[in-house]
Amino acid sequence: MITPRTLKGFRDFLPEVMLPRERLIDTAAAVYRSYGFAPIDTPALEYLEILQGKGSDETDKQLYQFTDHGNRSVGMRFDLTVPLARFTAQHFAELTFPFKRYHFGKVWRGENTQAGRYREFMQCDFDTIGTKSLTADIETVLVINDLLERIDIKSKQTFTRFKIRINNRKVLNGLLDKHGIADKTVPVLRALDKIHKVGKDAVWKEMTDAAGISETAAAAVLQLSELTGTNGEILTALEKLLSGNTLGGEGISELEQLTSAVRSVGADDNRITIDVSIARGLDYYTGTIYETFLDDLPGIGSVCSGGRYDNLAGLYTKQELPGIGASLGLDRLISAMEELGMLEKISTPVFLFMPYFVENRLADYLRFASQLRRRGLGVEFYPEAKKLGNQLKYADKRGFRFAVIIGEEEFAQALCKIKNLTTGESIDCKQNEAAEYFLLARPQ
Amino acid sequence: MITPRTLKGFRDFLPEVMLPRERLIDTAAAVYRSYGFAPIDTPALEYLEILQGKGSDETDKQLYQFTDHGNRSVGMRFDLTVPLARFTAQHFAELTFPFKRYHFGKVWRGENTQAGRYREFMQCDFDTIGTKSLTADIETVLVINDLLERIDIKSKQTFTRFKIRINNRKVLNGLLDKHGIADKTVPVLRALDKIHKVGKDAVWKEMTDAAGISETAAAAVLQLSELTGTNGEILTALEKLLSGNTLGGEGISELEQLTSAVRSVGADDNRITIDVSIARGLDYYTGTIYETFLDDLPGIGSVCSGGRYDNLAGLYTKQELPGIGASLGLDRLISAMEELGMLEKISTPVFLFMPYFVENRLADYLRFASQLRRRGLGVEFYPEAKKLGNQLKYADKRGFRFAVIIGEEEFAQALCKIKNLTTGESIDCKQNEAAEYFLLARPQ
Repeated sequence: MITPRTLKGFRDFLPEVMLPRERLIDTAAAVYRSYGFAPIDTPALEYLEILQGKGSDETDKQLYQFTDHGNRSVGMRFDLTVPLARFTAQHFAELTFPFKRYHFGKVWRGENTQAGRYREFMQCDFDTIGTKSLTADIETVLVINDLLERIDIKSKQTFTRFKIRINNRKVLNGLLDKHGIADKTVPVLRALDKIHKVGKDAVWKEMTDAAGISETAAAAVLQLSELTGTNGEILTALEKLLSGNTLGGEGISELEQLTSAVRSVGADDNRITIDVSIARGLDYYTGTIYETFLDDLPGIGSVCSGGRYDNLAGLYTKQELPGIGASLGLDRLISAMEELGMLEKISTPVFLFMPYFVENRLADYLRFASQLRRRGLGVEFYPEAKKLGNQLKYADKRGFRFAVIIGEEEFAQALCKIKNLTTGESIDCKQNEAAEYFLLARPQ
Repeated sequence: MITPRTLKGFRDFLPEVMLPRERLIDTAAAVYRSYGFAPIDTPALEYLEILQGKGSDETDKQLYQFTDHGNRSVGMRFDLTVPLARFTAQHFAELTFPFKRYHFGKVWRGENTQAGRYREFMQCDFDTIGTKSLTADIETVLVINDLLERIDIKSKQTFTRFKIRINNRKVLNGLLDKHGIADKTVPVLRALDKIHKVGKDAVWKEMTDAAGISETAAAAVLQLSELTGTNGEILTALEKLLSGNTLGGEGISELEQLTSAVRSVGADDNRITIDVSIARGLDYYTGTIYETFLDDLPGIGSVCSGGRYDNLAGLYTKQELPGIGASLGLDRLISAMEELGMLEKISTPVFLFMPYFVENRLADYLRFASQLRRRGLGVEFYPEAKKLGNQLKYADKRGFRFAVIIGEEEFAQALCKIKNLTTGESIDCKQNEAAEYFLLARPQ
């Protein structure tokens, strides 16, 4: 006998977790689509050279790679961005630009499995490719905002509370440029990205020692990263700090346009805030960057992040493809919902249960269930004519809301008994009126 | 520069194919759910011993297998049945039985890529585990019927036409039993399974030569496999052919109950027919078996197949787990729809396009788009204030149905111009009445 087990870092999803997961995916797809993003899909396996081209040493080490039947070096994709770059270059002639796509897919990384990190996880990306227009940056933040509103993350007591933090890479780059150290962007970014983990002093040390920038410049960088206040206050402070620098001025102007457009659409201004401390380590971002935090669970990190890049697919094509996108952290959100008590222990996709207990009435039960389904009401029919008590216990465990019970007496009178499984109350109902009743009682 | 390409046997999905694919998946999920089937998911990678345990030599050869970072022998799943068996055994204590699950997932097989066979494809399985009740067999055929009706496969001229063919393994087994050759089931099945490819004579030869069964028995097997007529006629003929055999009698009774239950629910009797010639090579089926063919495209083979098995997870647990299930051939269906001219060249998930051409009115455009979205109307807004003609060309290529055009004059009067991109006609509409207009004009 073989022991049934999953690999370390991999997991099964049981119905009670898959159901809210599918709801999240459906919501994300609906929001992405409502802005015109269209779905694509790419293979799990790619030529190794495609995956290694773009990755860092870190991702290369984590790659699941092997030699396939045809002696090709292949690897399992570790994100959806590299496949998008390859896809866009390969299908350039078939696509229309701006190309707005979303992509839900599993990715694999052989990383150390600690603290809720998995080796297989789902990414939910959306990107607008082929335009430098700030309109795309604005839409991206609107999508994130709609997404979080629709997902409606809340603990049982509070309402949806989240913050989208916005920054623009040109602000920091402008500051470095102003201090004559534009070439130090990468080490400064790397240092700054750790500020919440290691503290200000360590970042100072890393900048002045390892990166070797002057104390004046390091002080300016730290001053920048510590700016707080309303969006207006931060913009004013930035103008002072960066006055006279063209690149910095562009960044400030973009942040200003972005926040003002978002405000004009009626999105909650308190939720979309400029935060010049966010750096997002990845050095390919060149303009707007986003992170999204849940007020009630800041510790889990950003649940939706992204930014603008100058050239998506430079490794595969000479076509310059600027773009902007973000990625929803589905697994983080599921964890958050679990922690906030938002997930109920329900393992059924339908709320209606029909026990089977007059054995020779099978056709009548099936016909009644079929009538309910035709009205759009899902119903699970128990397949064996067991004792009613046992069947109701099963219904209870699975989390059904109502049982629709029909015995010989009910059949004779074309009635059914509707039992509310939460309260235990029962009412009698005409069979041909049951659908109406359930359509009203249906949980949303 | 790296050549952007996909591996042989793998493919990308562009929006115009992904959109109908997602519609099919949504439909299948809705139908499965309406019977109480709940979603699960399992990893792409499994321990190699799990995958090799159940597979045949054929699948073992096609397995994508390698050694991972932790020096474990692993493989990519080649179907969703083996993972289901492992899953059910592993989570036995957490599950409630009968356990009804559906699972959509990619599987990988390194097989020769000819005639539309891919090395990565999607499976859409549903199974009822833990009951021997024929009710589950009946529900399975009702699910297949609902599925094909909802998917509504039709050429532009005809209506949905498909046939679900039903057989019961006990009928053939009973016949072999009656002839005293119950031990020859597997070679007879293998021979019979090829009858449509190689013809009657070759099957006769294989049975009498290779399998070594008597000519009387071989004649009876062929006679059985050639029975045609209405369900009633076939049942009568079977009773004669199998009279006195208990197992065969069971099979006939199950077929009779199944067809009569399906009829009583109101499913079209002409679509659900007994066909004793279908064998489904897999020898683990023990009762009802199903295949589904499209009347207009019989050549593509079965688009939804399955059957009943006695014990799902015998390799992993001592728990006996009888069950029944079927699998929708998503990729075959997509090919069928393509061949029948059902797929339109549309690469947008929304039907509404809004050009951007008064540059300083960005906030007003965004506000209007946001109002439409709040009414449930998706709209794509072009991100750059280019020439209207260019934007409309883009809209045309993507397959939008309407453009909602707002110039300075329209803004001044709170109007918009609604252009039907199919007919070229335009009408003026008040901005605050546009949502009503589109809600009515929305294609289904």
